[in-house]
Amino acid sequence: MIADNKLNNLLDIDQLSKNDILYIFEFAEKLSSILNGPVKKVPVLRGKTVINYFSEPSTRTRVSFENAGKILSADVINVSSSGSSDEKGESFINTVQTLESIGADILIIRHSDSGAPYFVSRNIQIPVINAGDGSHAHPTQTLIDLYTVYKSIGEIEGLNLTILGDNIHSRVSRSAVLGFSTMGAKVTFCSPTTMNANYLSENDVNNYPSIMYTSNLKDALSDSDLIMTLRTQFERKASLVFPNINEYTRMFKLSNESLKYAPDKARILHPGPMNLGVEIDGYVSESDRSLINQQVMNSVAIRMALLIILIGEHTLDSI
Amino acid sequence: MIADNKLNNLLDIDQLSKNDILYIFEFAEKLSSILNGPVKKVPVLRGKTVINYFSEPSTRTRVSFENAGKILSADVINVSSSGSSDEKGESFINTVQTLESIGADILIIRHSDSGAPYFVSRNIQIPVINAGDGSHAHPTQTLIDLYTVYKSIGEIEGLNLTILGDNIHSRVSRSAVLGFSTMGAKVTFCSPTTMNANYLSENDVNNYPSIMYTSNLKDALSDSDLIMTLRTQFERKASLVFPNINEYTRMFKLSNESLKYAPDKARILHPGPMNLGVEIDGYVSESDRSLINQQVMNSVAIRMALLIILIGEHTLDSI
Amino acid sequence: MIADNKLNNLLDIDQLSKNDILYIFEFAEKLSSILNGPVKKVPVLRGKTVINYFSEPSTRTRVSFENAGKILSADVINVSSSGSSDEKGESFINTVQTLESIGADILIIRHSDSGAPYFVSRNIQIPVINAGDGSHAHPTQTLIDLYTVYKSIGEIEGLNLTILGDNIHSRVSRSAVLGFSTMGAKVTFCSPTTMNANYLSENDVNNYPSIMYTSNLKDALSDSDLIMTLRTQFERKASLVFPNINEYTRMFKLSNESLKYAPDKARILHPGPMNLGVEIDGYVSESDRSLINQQVMNSVAIRMALLIILIGEHTLDSI
Repeated sequence: MIADNKLNNLLDIDQLSKNDILYIFEFAEKLSSILNGPVKKVPVLRGKTVINYFSEPSTRTRVSFENAGKILSADVINVSSSGSSDEKGESFINTVQTLESIGADILIIRHSDSGAPYFVSRNIQIPVINAGDGSHAHPTQTLIDLYTVYKSIGEIEGLNLTILGDNIHSRVSRSAVLGFSTMGAKVTFCSPTTMNANYLSENDVNNYPSIMYTSNLKDALSDSDLIMTLRTQFERKASLVFPNINEYTRMFKLSNESLKYAPDKARILHPGPMNLGVEIDGYVSESDRSLINQQVMNSVAIRMALLIILIGEHTLDSI
Repeated sequence: MIADNKLNNLLDIDQLSKNDILYIFEFAEKLSSILNGPVKKVPVLRGKTVINYFSEPSTRTRVSFENAGKILSADVINVSSSGSSDEKGESFINTVQTLESIGADILIIRHSDSGAPYFVSRNIQIPVINAGDGSHAHPTQTLIDLYTVYKSIGEIEGLNLTILGDNIHSRVSRSAVLGFSTMGAKVTFCSPTTMNANYLSENDVNNYPSIMYTSNLKDALSDSDLIMTLRTQFERKASLVFPNINEYTRMFKLSNESLKYAPDKARILHPGPMNLGVEIDGYVSESDRSLINQQVMNSVAIRMALLIILIGEHTLDSI
Repeated sequence: MIADNKLNNLLDIDQLSKNDILYIFEFAEKLSSILNGPVKKVPVLRGKTVINYFSEPSTRTRVSFENAGKILSADVINVSSSGSSDEKGESFINTVQTLESIGADILIIRHSDSGAPYFVSRNIQIPVINAGDGSHAHPTQTLIDLYTVYKSIGEIEGLNLTILGDNIHSRVSRSAVLGFSTMGAKVTFCSPTTMNANYLSENDVNNYPSIMYTSNLKDALSDSDLIMTLRTQFERKASLVFPNINEYTRMFKLSNESLKYAPDKARILHPGPMNLGVEIDGYVSESDRSLINQQVMNSVAIRMALLIILIGEHTLDSI
């Protein structure tokens, strides 16, 4: 449990109990008031070094972590690698061990290989946050999504979440199903059958029995409280799993048309960056029922909370 | 008018009146004393986030803005993109809107597409500074040039400015003619006829009647107070508009030889980076009559002034 | 002498006397206590701008300097160039002069061309630190290596250092022989004959008579107190100088096997990044006799010391 100081990294969302997640929300809530105040700067992590190690291109996640660290007065150092041979195998571990020895207090890692943050975490002593690994997990995104729903709707327990689209390549989707299930939501996947992931292990399925799959959009949306549409990951060869993009768009795009299948109360999530006109229309993403902009706005408070919990001296009361 | 707090972005120099420009100079003058003091650091923008979004390679402009922000105690975050497909069309707007939602207080934008900062500015609420867009405008460079002349010569009204070289590709040139005209200087362009821009709209020409063009270097320099020689932009295919570089250099290079056509009082400007031996000789750029190094040195004070005016709480008196 | 304030750049280790080096160690020792304290942040270089100009890829050296500067509260700005044509010849000098005019207080420079930091230093007024230039020199690495030996063994005078491997491409090796000789160590090189550098000038050899060469690993290790094995620089065509990598590895790799030739007291150094399994085995690099991790850990304190000595106002007593 976090409150007992037992969290020393964040590799995937399944490390966290419902109480842990609510505790992170309380932290984020307090930090939001700093973000909305006149001076967005507190000396909470003064003298700490946060290293962003990103082996895949990223703007939003890197900038969000960088801003979170800087607002807390940490020194933030960016390291990017293009996945060159230097970064592979043992010499990748050599690199992160070097960053630890140089004085990193925490490593934020994005990597194109699923599992890389686990590998790193076993080989260094400092905390590691998984900022997205391959097709595997993206726990901070899920915390942001959950927090956004929590702030905008309230209780997550009992909500119906529909996850739409490119499940097979999506780390966002995999972490979302674990996190929303932990909070008591029911999850329905909807995609062309070729895009449906069989990634949930037997163990996961046993732990989270409330998961369903359909390739019928109408069925999927009919009872949704939340619709999360995923980015179509062309760079991960999404195009190989459906015949052509027009067919995908015609059948699965979130548009005013397709939203007629969903109840009025249904709110829309997207982890970004969006392919407008492919998996979602621009006027849907900007509509009143969209929580997409709030997701981005909440990202900094959640990541500040995690940095403080993992490497700060402050408790919830002393902020 | 700036003093009335009506400036909320800087897209091109024609937003500014003569009084606005003089007001910025007053600010820069005050800030210069900080830059020359023992500790180059003031908490004026503490808690503000400045994002440098550069879609074209740049060293001097990015570093100058980064240093300006950091000296003012802002958090500065760099984002570069190589103009990949992610950055195009709607998803480019998506990216800058995300940067706003993450908490940017101001966006400094350089972009290879003319007009991009206008497009951005219409789609986000925070201030935008155009740090150079395509062949269109580079207003902070013009403010630096004007300030350099103001500090070194004094009154700009009535001066004769000759702009020499690759007009057709030059955002520096386009902003310069607007800015120097606003301050009451007369502008003469000189270039091979193939390099002469017809970019000044009818409207501009009516507003700034004191603009002349000649392809004769001797005529262009004979009554110059200021000679601004432009960078030959090989990366923008400058070479296509003249037969060969030797011919260009022989006829238009600023050398001790060609400077014989100009009065002794004429001072020399270059926006950098220079192609030494092409549009200007090294001994000219380093001579006593060159203001080129002062241009660079003045860049940080001008950019600090703009950051404070656009996002700071301070007035000229409270710095 | 440093204590007399005569050091205004660090281009190679041969600028430093034994007393200078010991003085730097005293500084580093004091700074280590800050690094090990609860808040790794001191306002010693507040208001100073440190620019890291790296024209070659580097993670460890850049991050180490960046962290050193930030812990001292300097503003650190990174500039990287991929050695494009802009960076060559006069326009390279133009770039660094621009960085000086923008307000850099010190330039940390890594460059693929041997001698580049000297060229820079002659053309700007601010201090320059050579962070590695081509195959020439890497003086901060040598200070780190010396400091690591000093902290772990004590007196360096009289120690036998064996430098093993790719001498011909190694700036680390060239600076090490100068630095360890200054401190009174004896140096033996060992490599395939095709990898042995004839880079030591007549002058160097006269100044440092205690240098030997052998291609026989057993001879080289038999009386070693320190074994520094170099990175095999495949990117600098190391493979051209030996028939195949297996042969090199079989004959020169530092393994438990080859270490039988060395006395038990021999300690192991490697400048990193390591090619594990090529010039050194993983279990050797992680063994008790390895000082490799200490080298990395000591890097920040040494670089902090150099920054303070070159641009700070503090003396050893006022820190």
